[in-house]
Amino acid sequence: MSKGVTSREQNYSKWYTDVITKAELADYGPVKGTMVIRPYGYSIWETVQENFDKRFKDTGHVNAYFPLFIPKSFLNKEAEHVEGFAKECAVVTHHRLKVSEENGELVVDPDSILEEEVIVRPTSETVIWSMYKKWINSYRDLPILINQWANVVRWEMRTRLFLRTSEFLWQEGHTAHASEKEAREETLKILDIYKEVLEDVLAIPVLTGLKSESEKFAGAVDTYCIEAMMGDKRALQAGTSHYLGQNFAKAFDVTFQSEDNKQELVYATSWGVSTRLIGALIMVHGDEKGLHLPPKVAPHQVVVVPIAKSQSDVDEVLEYLNTILSALSGKNIRVHIDGRLTVTPGHKFNEWEMKGVPLRIEVGKRDIENNSVVLVRRDNGEKLMVNKGSAVKEIESSLELIQSYLFDEALKFRNKNTFSVDSFNQFKESINKGGFIKCGWDGNPETEKKIKDQTKATIRLISFDEKPDKLKCIYTGKPARHEVIFAKAY
Amino acid sequence: MSKGVTSREQNYSKWYTDVITKAELADYGPVKGTMVIRPYGYSIWETVQENFDKRFKDTGHVNAYFPLFIPKSFLNKEAEHVEGFAKECAVVTHHRLKVSEENGELVVDPDSILEEEVIVRPTSETVIWSMYKKWINSYRDLPILINQWANVVRWEMRTRLFLRTSEFLWQEGHTAHASEKEAREETLKILDIYKEVLEDVLAIPVLTGLKSESEKFAGAVDTYCIEAMMGDKRALQAGTSHYLGQNFAKAFDVTFQSEDNKQELVYATSWGVSTRLIGALIMVHGDEKGLHLPPKVAPHQVVVVPIAKSQSDVDEVLEYLNTILSALSGKNIRVHIDGRLTVTPGHKFNEWEMKGVPLRIEVGKRDIENNSVVLVRRDNGEKLMVNKGSAVKEIESSLELIQSYLFDEALKFRNKNTFSVDSFNQFKESINKGGFIKCGWDGNPETEKKIKDQTKATIRLISFDEKPDKLKCIYTGKPARHEVIFAKAY
Repeated sequence: MSKGVTSREQNYSKWYTDVITKAELADYGPVKGTMVIRPYGYSIWETVQENFDKRFKDTGHVNAYFPLFIPKSFLNKEAEHVEGFAKECAVVTHHRLKVSEENGELVVDPDSILEEEVIVRPTSETVIWSMYKKWINSYRDLPILINQWANVVRWEMRTRLFLRTSEFLWQEGHTAHASEKEAREETLKILDIYKEVLEDVLAIPVLTGLKSESEKFAGAVDTYCIEAMMGDKRALQAGTSHYLGQNFAKAFDVTFQSEDNKQELVYATSWGVSTRLIGALIMVHGDEKGLHLPPKVAPHQVVVVPIAKSQSDVDEVLEYLNTILSALSGKNIRVHIDGRLTVTPGHKFNEWEMKGVPLRIEVGKRDIENNSVVLVRRDNGEKLMVNKGSAVKEIESSLELIQSYLFDEALKFRNKNTFSVDSFNQFKESINKGGFIKCGWDGNPETEKKIKDQTKATIRLISFDEKPDKLKCIYTGKPARHEVIFAKAY
Repeated sequence: MSKGVTSREQNYSKWYTDVITKAELADYGPVKGTMVIRPYGYSIWETVQENFDKRFKDTGHVNAYFPLFIPKSFLNKEAEHVEGFAKECAVVTHHRLKVSEENGELVVDPDSILEEEVIVRPTSETVIWSMYKKWINSYRDLPILINQWANVVRWEMRTRLFLRTSEFLWQEGHTAHASEKEAREETLKILDIYKEVLEDVLAIPVLTGLKSESEKFAGAVDTYCIEAMMGDKRALQAGTSHYLGQNFAKAFDVTFQSEDNKQELVYATSWGVSTRLIGALIMVHGDEKGLHLPPKVAPHQVVVVPIAKSQSDVDEVLEYLNTILSALSGKNIRVHIDGRLTVTPGHKFNEWEMKGVPLRIEVGKRDIENNSVVLVRRDNGEKLMVNKGSAVKEIESSLELIQSYLFDEALKFRNKNTFSVDSFNQFKESINKGGFIKCGWDGNPETEKKIKDQTKATIRLISFDEKPDKLKCIYTGKPARHEVIFAKAY
C-alpha cells in the first residue's frame, strides 16, 4: 500500500480520494462542489479528448461553441427537460459588484439586476436548438453534426471528485436530421465510438444497451449508454447517447422543407462523455499501490529512474540511454526522466507506481557494464533485464502487453462479478455483495422503483442481445418484458 | 463586393458583421452579449489553439483546469484587480429554479440562495493563486508553468462579435517563480511566442512593447502587449503578457522556502490571447469580397470546384484528381470538394472567395483533355493553368506565396499608416485620418488622459526600441520620457 493512500479494502471511497490527491490528478476548488483538474489529471483528459475528437471528425462531425448562459425561460420549453435540470441550476441574477459605502465590503450592486435571470448551462440542447431554428430551413441544411467541448454546471451538494462536481468538462454532440432512421443510426454510431474508445484506449470493458424510462435523459425518446463495473463492483454510467425524436424541434419550432416540399419537424440526437471517465480509469485499474494507467492514456508511458548518487552518475545513465530515448521519442512514446538527486530510487519507484506509470526503466552502473537495461512492469511487477539493442522493441511490446492485460483483468473482474439469480431473496443477497445482476423485469416502472427502494439497485441497461422470452420478473414473478442488468451505481 | 456584404468603405463596422454572418463564422446567442462560434469559425480557433498549445508545451508549460466559479470575496483581495473587474461580473446568487404555484412559470427558488455569492471568472488569477497557496511550499515546487484553455465572462453592454462579448474563449497562463528575474524572463518569452504565432501563422504583423500605467492589467506591475493595425487603421490589442510581481502572492499569502531557508513571496506572471484573434484575422486580411484567410489557419486551404453539370461529370473530375487529392492529403493540406449540383460554379467561386479560402482548383472536361488543372489564388486573383503532374508542387508553393503575400500586404499597410508628427495639431489631424502615431510623451498619466479625452486616441505601447532622448511630449512640449505609439483602438 502506497504511503498516504488508504487501503481499498478498508475504505474504497477514501482510497479513491487519496489516489486523486496523492497522484495530483485533482483538488477541491474554493467554491463548494468545484474541482481543480491538476496538470497530471488534465493531461489524461487531453489524450481522452484527442481520441474522441479524431473519431468524431472521421465520422463527419465538426466542433462549435455555444454560449454558457441560457435564458431561464428556455429550460421551460421542454417539459421533461425542465423537470430534470431546474433543481440544480446555477442562476445569474446580477452583472455587477460594488464596494459597499457602509463597510467597504464587496457587495452585489442591486442596480445591476437582470431583466430575465440566466442560467449556467447544465447541458446545451435548448440554446443549440434555438440556434438550429435560425440555421435550418431546408433538407439541404441537414444533417447538422455538431459537437462541442465545454464546461457545464449542475449544482451538487454531495461532491465526489471527477464523478460528481458542480462544474465538469465534457463533450456534447447535438445533431439534426431529416429522418428518424438517420437520427437513430447516428445515436448508435456514437455509442459504438464510445465503446471503442473506452475499450481500446481506456482499457475499460463496457456493456451497451438501452436505459429504462425512469433512467433516461430528461427530454429523450431513448437513451443508450455504456456502463462499466468499478473496482468496488458498483456500476458507472460512462457515456450516454440519446435519440431525442422531435421533442426539441417541437419545443423550439424547428422545421425544414423536405425534398417533396413539405414542412417537417427535425429529428435530433445528443450524446456526451465527461471528465467522469477519469474517475472510471482510477476505479477500474487502480490498486493498493494507487493509480494504474493504461499506456494509451498515461501522461508518462515510461519513467526512467537512473540508479545514481550524483549528477555525473545521472548524466552517464542518460548518455548511455541516448539512442534509446531518441528512438522512443521518434515513436511518440511519452517518456519522463526522473533525474532528481533529492530522493532515492526506491522513493521514486513508489511514487511513479502510485502515479500509475505503466513501465519503469532502471539503469545503473552495472547495467551499463552489462550493456543492458531493466524494465519493470507496473501491472504484474515483472522485472525484465534486456539487452540495450533490443530495449526499444521490448518497451513497445511491454506497453502493448500492459494495455491488453489491464483490459483483460477488468473484463475478468466484471465477468466474475456478474450474476444470474432466480429469486428476489437471491437478488438482495447478491446485490449486497456487489456486482451486476442479470435478470428478468416485467417492464413496469413501479416494479423498478420498489426494487430500487428496497435494495438501492437500479436498472443499468436493457441489453441489445436480451433474451427475455423465458424469463420471469425477479420481483413480481410475472413474465419478463426485458432482460436487464441491475446494480448499485455511482 | 460579395452579395449581402456591405462595402468596407461605406460602413466598416457593418462590413465586419456581414462577413462574420455570411461566412458563418459566428452568430449572436440568445442572451444579450453572447456569441455562438459556428463550425467554420471554430475550426479557425482550433488551429490557432494548436499553434499556441504546441509552443507553450515546447517551452515547458502544462495545461490544467480551474473552476468557473470564484467566491465573491476573492476579487477583493487585490486592490487594483477588484477595480478592474467588479463592474462587469456575472453574479450567481441561487442554485435552483422551481415552477411557480401561482402561474406555472419557472422562477428562481428563493430558498436556494447562496450563503456567499459566487462570480463567474472574468480571469483566473484569484482562484489560481488560492490553489498555488496549497501547492507551493518550497523552491522545489517552483516554477509552476500552467496554462488553461477556458471560457471567461465580462459582462458587456456593447457587443461586437469576437471583439467584445460577455463570454469569450481564451488561454490564460499563470506561472509562479522563485525570482523576479525568472518571472520577467517568462513574461517576455511568452510575448515572443505571441508575436511568432501572430506573424508566422496568422500573417498579422504586430508591434510589441510595454503598456502605460493607465492601460495595464488590473493587478500587474508591468503589462506587455502585441498590437496590430486593423483594416480601418485602428489598433487592436491582440495579446498581453503581465509581470505581476508579488501582488497576487501577497493577496493570497503564497510564500516559499528558498534554497537558503528563508520564507519569500512568490513571483507571478499571467498572459492571454483570445478568440478576439479571429476578429483580427477578419479585419487585417478581409476585403470587399469578404473573409480572406491565411493558408496556415484556413479550415479549407484549397477548394475544388468541378466544372460539371451532372453527377457523372463530378465523378469524372474527382477520378481525374484522385492522385492529386491523395498527395495533398498525405501532405496534410486541407482540401474541400464542393461537388454540389444545386449551385453553379460561378456561385461557388463567389461563395468560397467570400469564405476566404486561399486557393481554388477548377477542373472541367477541357482541363481533363489537356491533362491540366486551373489554380486560382484568392489574394491576387491570378489564374494559373498547370500540368497535372506538377499540380501538387504548384499548390504547395501557391499556398506559401499567399501566406507571405498576406503578411507583406498587412505590413505595408501598417507602415504606410504609421506617422511621426511634430505638433498636437498635426496629431489631431492625423489621428482623425486613422493610423498609428509615433511621438514623444512626457510620461504623465494626466497628459495621456487629456489626449484621450480630446482625440479618443490611447497609448498602445511604449516600444522596446524607443528613442525618447531628443523628443518632446506631443501635448505638453516638455522633454519626452517615452516614445510611444498612439492610436484609436478597439
